Amino acid sequence: MSELRNDRYLRALLREPVDKTPVWVMRQAGRYLPEYREVRAKAGDFMTLCSTPDLACEVTLQPLRRFELDAAIIFSDILTIPDAMGLGLHFVAGEGPKFTKPIQSAADIAKLGVPDMASELRYVMDAISVTRRELNGDVPLIGFSGSPWTLACYMVEGGASKDFGKVKGMMFDAPEQMHKLLDIMAQSVTAYLNAQIAAGAQSVMLFDTWGGTLSTRDYQQFSLAYMQQIISGLTRESEGRKVPVTVFTKGGGQWLPLIAAVGCDAVGVDWTTDLSVAREAVNGKVALQGNMDPCVLYANKARIEQEVASVLASFGEGEGHVFNLGHGIHPTIDPDHMGCLIDAVHNLSVPYHQG
Amino acid sequence: MSELRNDRYLRALLREPVDKTPVWVMRQAGRYLPEYREVRAKAGDFMTLCSTPDLACEVTLQPLRRFELDAAIIFSDILTIPDAMGLGLHFVAGEGPKFTKPIQSAADIAKLGVPDMASELRYVMDAISVTRRELNGDVPLIGFSGSPWTLACYMVEGGASKDFGKVKGMMFDAPEQMHKLLDIMAQSVTAYLNAQIAAGAQSVMLFDTWGGTLSTRDYQQFSLAYMQQIISGLTRESEGRKVPVTVFTKGGGQWLPLIAAVGCDAVGVDWTTDLSVAREAVNGKVALQGNMDPCVLYANKARIEQEVASVLASFGEGEGHVFNLGHGIHPTIDPDHMGCLIDAVHNLSVPYHQG
Repeated sequence: MSELRNDRYLRALLREPVDKTPVWVMRQAGRYLPEYREVRAKAGDFMTLCSTPDLACEVTLQPLRRFELDAAIIFSDILTIPDAMGLGLHFVAGEGPKFTKPIQSAADIAKLGVPDMASELRYVMDAISVTRRELNGDVPLIGFSGSPWTLACYMVEGGASKDFGKVKGMMFDAPEQMHKLLDIMAQSVTAYLNAQIAAGAQSVMLFDTWGGTLSTRDYQQFSLAYMQQIISGLTRESEGRKVPVTVFTKGGGQWLPLIAAVGCDAVGVDWTTDLSVAREAVNGKVALQGNMDPCVLYANKARIEQEVASVLASFGEGEGHVFNLGHGIHPTIDPDHMGCLIDAVHNLSVPYHQG
Repeated sequence: MSELRNDRYLRALLREPVDKTPVWVMRQAGRYLPEYREVRAKAGDFMTLCSTPDLACEVTLQPLRRFELDAAIIFSDILTIPDAMGLGLHFVAGEGPKFTKPIQSAADIAKLGVPDMASELRYVMDAISVTRRELNGDVPLIGFSGSPWTLACYMVEGGASKDFGKVKGMMFDAPEQMHKLLDIMAQSVTAYLNAQIAAGAQSVMLFDTWGGTLSTRDYQQFSLAYMQQIISGLTRESEGRKVPVTVFTKGGGQWLPLIAAVGCDAVGVDWTTDLSVAREAVNGKVALQGNMDPCVLYANKARIEQEVASVLASFGEGEGHVFNLGHGIHPTIDPDHMGCLIDAVHNLSVPYHQG
């Protein structure tokens, strides 16, 4: 593998000195880019895009040709594991992901097994290998997975949900059943992320999109405990470097001290929690990733720069900050506004790293 | 007006002694009740139900015939004010509320005026008068409104929204315009709640459903400030009693000390924040309302009782707790489970009030 020329992102995750704050953006490869929409249209189906390594590599690299991003994230979907388990993932326009065979009973759970990474999820590993080769050491490549709780939400609900009645109904009415499901998902995610690291992912991230819908007690028992189980089973070094692990629970601002204690290197923060408050809460234990409101990108460029300055000031001086939005970039954002954001982070962050 | 025979709810809001913890449930008059669905079907249209005082009264009282609730809440919709402003409220099955004329520009905002409570929103006041007469002193009647920010979300988005791109786009790109809109909404909500109090509402509540989608700074400037403006303009005494004011920002757990400082008597808390943490955060300044996860009602009755016990224990001994769910009851809940909840609150809370 070629030498990494820009390792700002990896260094910041480990709270090591950097010259400026690194930045990448959730869903940076996505619908807001016309070149993405073109490839997506040619591929026809969203899952074809995910499961064809050359196409996944192409869209992964697209935003890096436009913007000076400090990391690439492999183009994929968080629902690849349940799909490999045979739940029948498909996408309905305007409604998001759906499963033809959702989990409805203890019997459904008993049938689930950890997918074989070398065959059933090989396309993800192949996409990572191809992308690493194409990146050629420019920036690090991030691998990822949904958290067990988040995957269980989609698997039991059969798709997106407004109130999570089915999955929480199962959690409250049959907690042992839910624990069985989460344990098999945690085993699968561990194997999945380790396979991604073996294939070349230089950092991995757990997206806990729906952990924030739980009470503090239920979050600890049904989401955080399984992320901790995964982290304790991960390969933490590869190619002679540490492989940093980031945990992001959307809406988890109240639980940052708990999240910082599960063995991860960095914690994602959404915009509802001020970074100065978050930094105090994690007390130097982990790096922080975030946290501009994605809707700021609808504003004019002067306002975008002002908000970038505000987020940087909120984290303050010193190491351990990776700039990101607090959620994925919206599909209707003007790519020029994304460029404005990336440049502003680099330009305005230099003074914060002269300690 | 007849003497109030059960004033537990009003007393708890003012942190006065009660024999057991009072309980009511958001959307207690609603689709989970077959008798509601029957009246709703006869009325044909949801807004007909809201705007016909006798029908609104009937569905308001339905849950009180089944359960020993400690308060009634007038059946209405949070979008009555923008409807009276001429935005053309209607409901699309499965999609929720829509406006035919959403707010898109400064010119649209300039055209808005405070609706006339005695004519354009008279049906709400009539529903309150009729319901007070029918309640005949059994339990107090709650009036309510959406918060200015929450109303603005619907008015600018034109309906429900996933990412609030339009309303936040306006907030970030043209903050002065957004402040104009919020100011006219705050004036309208103040007049609306005062008219409800004059008509017989014995307590009022501000539903800030979408305040939790903002950053701490934006929440203070664009949501909380306008709720404070409203509260400072409210009639606080009527019929010789204090009229307690409750503020509920869903997802506002991190901001409880800020909310407790705006002059309200009580603060609603959703289930993501533990009541013991919330109680410490508000430090005896206000009462707390909440906070069981509505999905607990999908579980078996033994589990529902266990969770009620857990919420009561979380608040602990002493005064200032109104039991509620952390969000409206879901339409597919079995009414018997609601009954189990109400009885459990009364039965299990007695030991907490013997100080």
